[in-house]
Amino acid sequence: MSEAIQLIPGNTLITASPEEGRQLAVKMSRLIIKATQPDATVRERLRGIYAEDPMMLIAIGQTVAAEFATIAAANDYWKGK
Amino acid sequence: MSEAIQLIPGNTLITASPEEGRQLAVKMSRLIIKATQPDATVRERLRGIYAEDPMMLIAIGQTVAAEFATIAAANDYWKGK
Amino acid sequence: MSEAIQLIPGNTLITASPEEGRQLAVKMSRLIIKATQPDATVRERLRGIYAEDPMMLIAIGQTVAAEFATIAAANDYWKGK
Amino acid sequence: MSEAIQLIPGNTLITASPEEGRQLAVKMSRLIIKATQPDATVRERLRGIYAEDPMMLIAIGQTVAAEFATIAAANDYWKGK
Amino acid sequence: MSEAIQLIPGNTLITASPEEGRQLAVKMSRLIIKATQPDATVRERLRGIYAEDPMMLIAIGQTVAAEFATIAAANDYWKGK
Amino acid sequence: MSEAIQLIPGNTLITASPEEGRQLAVKMSRLIIKATQPDATVRERLRGIYAEDPMMLIAIGQTVAAEFATIAAANDYWKGK
Repeated sequence: MSEAIQLIPGNTLITASPEEGRQLAVKMSRLIIKATQPDATVRERLRGIYAEDPMMLIAIGQTVAAEFATIAAANDYWKGK
Repeated sequence: MSEAIQLIPGNTLITASPEEGRQLAVKMSRLIIKATQPDATVRERLRGIYAEDPMMLIAIGQTVAAEFATIAAANDYWKGK
Repeated sequence: MSEAIQLIPGNTLITASPEEGRQLAVKMSRLIIKATQPDATVRERLRGIYAEDPMMLIAIGQTVAAEFATIAAANDYWKGK
Repeated sequence: MSEAIQLIPGNTLITASPEEGRQLAVKMSRLIIKATQPDATVRERLRGIYAEDPMMLIAIGQTVAAEFATIAAANDYWKGK
Repeated sequence: MSEAIQLIPGNTLITASPEEGRQLAVKMSRLIIKATQPDATVRERLRGIYAEDPMMLIAIGQTVAAEFATIAAANDYWKGK
Repeated sequence: MSEAIQLIPGNTLITASPEEGRQLAVKMSRLIIKATQPDATVRERLRGIYAEDPMMLIAIGQTVAAEFATIAAANDYWKGK
């Protein structure tokens, strides 16, 4: 993994709203793929595959759900919102 | 991902009942797929595949279960209901 | 998804016993599949596939385990039982 | 699913020790498969498949891990033991 | 499953350190496979398969992560360490 | 598994920041693969496979998400950061 990639934008799990927390979950899941496959050309080619593959799209959803669970707990589920 | 898509309808995890929380889990899981594959025509074609594929249907169930776990915790499991 | 399908029978996660909680987990996981594939004839055909496929049976077990984790937490694990 | 099958032996998640909790996790995961495929002859045939398939054995391990997480929480992790 | 196999070495989830907790997670995940496939010769043959299969290695990592989550919670994350 | 491999660098789950916690999650997930396949030449060959396989990259993301969930809980989500 390239040590130069920042894996958590802003270096915090705290967000102002559930929507921003969800966006962070998406970004965090993508940054792991970027760190594992740093070549942007390869990632673009792979994107053409997974964006048309229903099982891969479902699996992406599972990853985001897992990341979001952690972010939501970190924000105490934005209960006041 | 199109930044224009809202990933959490209403921008809250709080719902009035377990049933509404479950519906939110379904919607949130679908919105991730929509954000990853914004082309409605492609999504419709993929739907014809996963709706007839038992393993994919099971995997969809796993995604919803994961989203729902977070929503249920956010609502303290609707314990008073 | 057909909006008419109730996703959580009784609209509550609270059950009288672990056994009933487990049954609810099974039902909730099946209702997601029903909502995603509303055609009963198709579902019956798919059942003939997954009921004989060991990997799919294992995956069904993972889904139920995830749903049950949420239900068990909602019931504080039926600790007094 | 045959309604006659008991899904949680003893109808409790509370066990005397981690070891018994682990055994319960194994049993609970198997009972879901039994409930989904009630035919013992079919299950025996499928067993011959998954017991020799490394990916299926790994997946079984994931199911048991998930069930055990719930049981361990129910027993407050047997912290006094 | 052979009833003679001990599924949790030491019959406790409590360990002196995160490292020991991680080792316990590895052992616990292996013991489930051993209990499901008691034949050591078969397990050795399967090992030759999964140790060279990247998807299976990743799946093993997911199993260990799940077991470790439970062990870490049981030890209150070894927070004083 | 080679007993000589340290599975958790520093033998602690506590990190100074979310970013460092995320890096620890990546390392911990890799060390399980290293412990399961100690041959560096084989691992390098497998890396050429999974780094170009979208489903495997997604699965790696799921593993990291699971490890990170535990690390984040151990650090009380770095709430003060």
